[in-house]
Amino acid sequence: MRFSQDRLSEKQLFESLQIPVPPYRTVDSAQDLRNAADDIGLPLVLKTRRLGYDGKGQAVVREEADLSHALTALGDSNLIAEQWVPFDCEVSAICVRNVRGDVLVYPLIENQHRDGILIISRAPAEANGLAALATRHLRQMLAHFDYVGVLTIEFFVVGDQLLANEFAPRVHNSGHWTIEGARTSQFENHLRAILDLPLGDVSPVGHAAMLNLIGSMPSKTLELGNETTFLHDYGKSPRPGRKLGHITVVASNPADRERTVTRLSEILVASANPTGIADCIDLPR
Amino acid sequence: MRFSQDRLSEKQLFESLQIPVPPYRTVDSAQDLRNAADDIGLPLVLKTRRLGYDGKGQAVVREEADLSHALTALGDSNLIAEQWVPFDCEVSAICVRNVRGDVLVYPLIENQHRDGILIISRAPAEANGLAALATRHLRQMLAHFDYVGVLTIEFFVVGDQLLANEFAPRVHNSGHWTIEGARTSQFENHLRAILDLPLGDVSPVGHAAMLNLIGSMPSKTLELGNETTFLHDYGKSPRPGRKLGHITVVASNPADRERTVTRLSEILVASANPTGIADCIDLPR
Repeated sequence: MRFSQDRLSEKQLFESLQIPVPPYRTVDSAQDLRNAADDIGLPLVLKTRRLGYDGKGQAVVREEADLSHALTALGDSNLIAEQWVPFDCEVSAICVRNVRGDVLVYPLIENQHRDGILIISRAPAEANGLAALATRHLRQMLAHFDYVGVLTIEFFVVGDQLLANEFAPRVHNSGHWTIEGARTSQFENHLRAILDLPLGDVSPVGHAAMLNLIGSMPSKTLELGNETTFLHDYGKSPRPGRKLGHITVVASNPADRERTVTRLSEILVASANPTGIADCIDLPR
Repeated sequence: MRFSQDRLSEKQLFESLQIPVPPYRTVDSAQDLRNAADDIGLPLVLKTRRLGYDGKGQAVVREEADLSHALTALGDSNLIAEQWVPFDCEVSAICVRNVRGDVLVYPLIENQHRDGILIISRAPAEANGLAALATRHLRQMLAHFDYVGVLTIEFFVVGDQLLANEFAPRVHNSGHWTIEGARTSQFENHLRAILDLPLGDVSPVGHAAMLNLIGSMPSKTLELGNETTFLHDYGKSPRPGRKLGHITVVASNPADRERTVTRLSEILVASANPTGIADCIDLPR
């Protein structure tokens, strides 16, 4: 928890485990930020070291003029400045280890974020060729902590490189598709792991996508579940930017999955729903 | 409920819907039973009309001498006598219909009982060639009741015939494998149905088997779950003949499934567990 809740400790941990990270600098003053901009270049992302999630506690610095705004927004100490990595895509890697030390790794998941919030995950990711590399990184972290349970690392994919963004010592939003899309869900495997039960098969049962429902539940809720889609309503009160539910699609091939994702997105956009979905999906206009 | 709780009404319902049933006679006296034995032959099964489940309220009459014992055990009225059908196997057919009238049918399930209690179910059944016939019978019943939710009919398979044994207006023990073995479980589809949501895909995701845990939970509980097996513990107090949990196996082919079923059965028998499992599986001695 200590490492995952402090972005500096987290990055130092990744580095100590030979897991590559984007270039970054610590920032505790306006001068630090100016030096960071010179060293790692613009654009950069300024982040609070602690208490950041879902895009909170972050500011993008695209040009010189943004530097002071960012400091005003976030305070001027206990920050880190990260290079804005020109990534091909973002993926997460989810693994599970039980008390007796068995390890299983789910297929890589491709994630699309808007304003720091996860909008869509797809699995297995097209970048699944990097799965062996991701598994190596996961195993380094599992071994370091003698970890038991589900653990997630988010990476930027840059060519054939994986740069670690952050990790979560828990089940992860990007793994919710495993409820219907994998033989054993991340939730069941977390319980099996901590109870020292044998782990369950992590193979996918198809090509899955998960769409987060953010801010408000769509008006046509009933139409969002069908033969290949699974609606989850968390029963939370609506609030801008809040994750209120998700829909999982399980299809037999990527093309069918994309057709369903597009159809769902059209319904979501039509019901004036979720933050960002229109930016993530190329809808016919 | 009224029809499924009274074996005579149930059989009359099947007949009115052109769903074949084994030959039977009503029995309200010793003379009725003697006439039934003459008409439908021995062996026969004598059953109470009401309140029978898991083999309770039944007696097998194999020879003349059993006739009076059976009446002593069950009382001498409100009974029915059924022909002991020389069936090839027993199957159940589970379907679901939502408020708007969409219907989906799970693959046929092959069931093995001992002493009237379900021990093992396997799906898809080898007898799945009879699925179209089963679906026709299910649709007749759904239409008759304008039914909404999950509905199950149990059949005897005799050659290419299906003889209805009983039906259940609900999710069914023989459908528990759908939790991990089908795209959408019978439980989720029941909820979708009564909420008038679109139904979820009922396709199997592999070759599944479900083993009931009866009477006592096995001592080596931890070893009963693994990559392809899923342990369910209902948290009930042990009692002879009581269903306390089940294990679902999901394999990619029937041979792998049978290997796992055999391994599990060996563990169950070794831990002096469940009623009947040794009779249902050919274990190496």
